Amino acid sequence: MISLLDIRARIADGTLPAADAIRGARERIAAQDPAIGAILRLAPETAVVPEVGPLAGIAVGVKDIIATADMATEYGSDIYAGWRPRADAAIVSRLRALGAVPLAKTATTAFAGLDPAATVNPRDPGHTPGGSSSGSAAAVAAGMLPLALGTQTGGSVIRPAAFCGVAAIKPSFRLLPTVGVKTFSWALDTVGLFGASVADIAHALALIAERPAIEAPAPERPRLALCLQDFAGSADADALAALERAVRAAERAGAVVHDLVLPAPFARAWAVHPTVQDFEARQALAWEYAEHRDALPPVLRGQLDRAQDLTAADYDAARREAHRARRQLKELFADVDAILTVSSVGRAPRGLGSTGDARFNRLWTLMGVPCVNVPVPGDGLPLGVQVIARFGDDGRALAVARGIEGALARE
Amino acid sequence: MISLLDIRARIADGTLPAADAIRGARERIAAQDPAIGAILRLAPETAVVPEVGPLAGIAVGVKDIIATADMATEYGSDIYAGWRPRADAAIVSRLRALGAVPLAKTATTAFAGLDPAATVNPRDPGHTPGGSSSGSAAAVAAGMLPLALGTQTGGSVIRPAAFCGVAAIKPSFRLLPTVGVKTFSWALDTVGLFGASVADIAHALALIAERPAIEAPAPERPRLALCLQDFAGSADADALAALERAVRAAERAGAVVHDLVLPAPFARAWAVHPTVQDFEARQALAWEYAEHRDALPPVLRGQLDRAQDLTAADYDAARREAHRARRQLKELFADVDAILTVSSVGRAPRGLGSTGDARFNRLWTLMGVPCVNVPVPGDGLPLGVQVIARFGDDGRALAVARGIEGALARE
Repeated sequence: MISLLDIRARIADGTLPAADAIRGARERIAAQDPAIGAILRLAPETAVVPEVGPLAGIAVGVKDIIATADMATEYGSDIYAGWRPRADAAIVSRLRALGAVPLAKTATTAFAGLDPAATVNPRDPGHTPGGSSSGSAAAVAAGMLPLALGTQTGGSVIRPAAFCGVAAIKPSFRLLPTVGVKTFSWALDTVGLFGASVADIAHALALIAERPAIEAPAPERPRLALCLQDFAGSADADALAALERAVRAAERAGAVVHDLVLPAPFARAWAVHPTVQDFEARQALAWEYAEHRDALPPVLRGQLDRAQDLTAADYDAARREAHRARRQLKELFADVDAILTVSSVGRAPRGLGSTGDARFNRLWTLMGVPCVNVPVPGDGLPLGVQVIARFGDDGRALAVARGIEGALARE
Repeated sequence: MISLLDIRARIADGTLPAADAIRGARERIAAQDPAIGAILRLAPETAVVPEVGPLAGIAVGVKDIIATADMATEYGSDIYAGWRPRADAAIVSRLRALGAVPLAKTATTAFAGLDPAATVNPRDPGHTPGGSSSGSAAAVAAGMLPLALGTQTGGSVIRPAAFCGVAAIKPSFRLLPTVGVKTFSWALDTVGLFGASVADIAHALALIAERPAIEAPAPERPRLALCLQDFAGSADADALAALERAVRAAERAGAVVHDLVLPAPFARAWAVHPTVQDFEARQALAWEYAEHRDALPPVLRGQLDRAQDLTAADYDAARREAHRARRQLKELFADVDAILTVSSVGRAPRGLGSTGDARFNRLWTLMGVPCVNVPVPGDGLPLGVQVIARFGDDGRALAVARGIEGALARE
C-alpha cells in the first residue's frame, strides 16, 4: 500500500514533486484497476496539482455518492448516469484547500445501499471487497491511492476496510461535513477515511477537521473494554481469534483490558438502527422511489417498499432508544478509554452476491462514536478489529488503534 | 389571503376542481406578482395536477434554496444561474405525494443569508418583507398562494412571517427533511411553512410529517410563560404592545400566563448561535467561497471572511453551551405548555436595504424547538408574536397559537 505520511515526507524533503506523486497514482490506477474495478472515473489530466499545502501530492479517491464539480457523480445508479453537480461537496473543497487532489471517483453500491458494486477484493478477486464504500477500500488496499473517502450508515466504512485489510476511521458523527453527500439517513450518514496505516488516517483527519489533537499520543496505560456484542450474534471463529490477538497486542503495548457486556439498552438500540435508517431513507430517496422505482436495484427497492409501512411513532420510539443508549455509553466511557470489538462477522464472503453484514458496526454508527479499523495481519483474506472511543474523542480511538497496530507489526 | 383549509373544503364538496384551484394560483401570480417580486419562476403549464390526495389543489411556493427537478434552483445567486437539480428535495417529493403542486419558486436572499432579495412587502412596497424566506412570506401574504416553504437558520421563517402578517411555523429541528435543501448550517437549518392561518399550517404540517397529533386541540387551561429575552436587547414599543395584546387574548382563551426570565445559560447560548452557524457555513459554502468569492453578495462575503478565523475549539465550546441550554429548556417545559415572546424587534424596516434582525429568533433555532408566528391584527404594518413549545411538541405550539389567533380575531 502507499503511505500518505511517506509521500508527505518525500515531498517535504524535496525528493518527490507533488505532480509526480499524483502522476504515480494515475499510473498505478491505469495498471491495476482493470483487474479490480475500484475506479469509475478520473479528474481531467489538466486538473491543477498544488505544489503547496499540507496534503499536496496526495491523490484522493472520492466515493461516488460525494459531489465533485469536475467529475460526474452517479450514486452508483443509472438514474444519475452522467450527472454533474455544480459544486464540490464540502469535504472535497476542504481537501482541495489542503493541497490534495481529488483524483478519482470510486465505486459505490447504489445510493450506498446493500446491492453490490462491481468492484472485487484486491486481496482475492473471488471475494467481495465489502460495501458500500467498495471502491475506496479496494483502491487503498491495492496501493492505487494513499487516501480515500467513504461513508458509513450501517457499516460501510469499517466493514470494507476489514475485508480489504486497510486502516479506516468512521469519525464522530458530523466531525466531517456531509454537505454534498447523497443522503441515505441524515441521523447516521458519516464521512470516513481509508488509508494504509492508522497514523496515515490520523494525520489526514487532523488536517481535514482542523483538530491537531487528533494526532495526540495515547494514554500510557489505556483502559480497554473487550466487547463481543452478543446481541448481534456470534462472530466467526477466526474473527474472534483475531480479536484475541489484538487484545494480547494491546496488553503488550501497555493497555489494561477487561471484559464488557453491554446492558440491555444497547441491545435495544442495536435492534432499532434499521428503523431510524429506513424511515429516513424513505424520505431521503422519495424522488428516486416515486419517479424511478423500477430502476432501483432489488435489495434497496425491497428495503424502501418495506419502509413505506414505518410510522412516525416507530421512528420516535427508535430515536428514544438510541438517545437512552447514547447517554449510557457516555457514562460507560468515564472508566474506559476505548472499546475493542470485531470489525466484521469474519473474512470477506466469497463472490460478489453480497457485500457482507454490518451487524457488528451498526450500534456504533447509531451511537455516533468514532470507530477505527485496525487490520490484523495473518494468512488468507484480511481480518480487522474495531477500536471505539467516546463521542468527540477521535484522537483517543486513533491513538489506541495505533498502539495495537504497532504491537501487531512487532509480532 | 387564500386559506388552504377553505380550498380543501371546496375540493372535498365538489365545488372546486383541483385544476381550477391551481389555475387560480397562476392567475393571481400573473396579476399581483409584478408589483411584489415574490415569484422567480413557475412549474411548466403541462405540470400534472393531481385530482386526489389530501393536499390536491394546493399550489405551493418553494423557496429557491430547495431543489426542484422541474424548475431551476438558483439559491438566490448568479453562481447557480439556470442550475437545474436532477431530483426534487425530499420535502417537495412529499408534497407531490400528498397531491399538492409545487407551483412556484419563491425569492430567497442569496444562500438564505442576510443580503436582501428584490421582493417587497405586500403590505407596503416601501418596506422589506424580511428574509431570508422573502418570497414565500410575501406570496402567502399577497394571497397568491395558500402554502409556501421557507427555511430558518437564524430567524428566516418567523421574521418574514411577522413582517408580512402571515401564520408560519419553524417546526422542531428535522421534523421536516432538509435533504435537497442548500445547507448553510446543518445544526440549524430548518424547513418551515407559511400559510393564511395557524389552522392552515397545522393541517399542512400534520399531513407532511404524517403526524395527525399535530392538529390536536390545546390543553383547556394552557400554562404560558411570557418571556422578553432581555439578553437580546429590547423590542420596539409597538412589538411589546402587540405581545401584551396577545397575552390578554391568551388569557381570554383560558390560558394562565406568568412571567419568565430565562437564566444565564440561555443568554450564553443566544450569544454563541453565530459561532455554530458561521463555522458550519464556512464548510457548507466552501466551494462557493473558494471558486466564486467575488460573486458572493457583500454581507455574506464578509460573514464568510470573518468565519475563516473561527476555530474548532470555538465551535465545540458553542455547541456545549447550546447543549446545556437545551437540557435546561427541557426541564423548564415540565411546568410550561408554551413560551410567548415577540416575533421580531418591531415592524418591517423601511426600504430594502436590510431584511431585519433575527435577535429574538435565533435562540429558539439553536434550541431546535417549534416556533409559531401569530399575526396580531392592527393598523399599519403587521406585528406578530411567537409561540414556542418544547422539542417535538409542534402540535402544542400550534394549538396554543390557534387559541391566541382566535381570541384576537374576536376582539
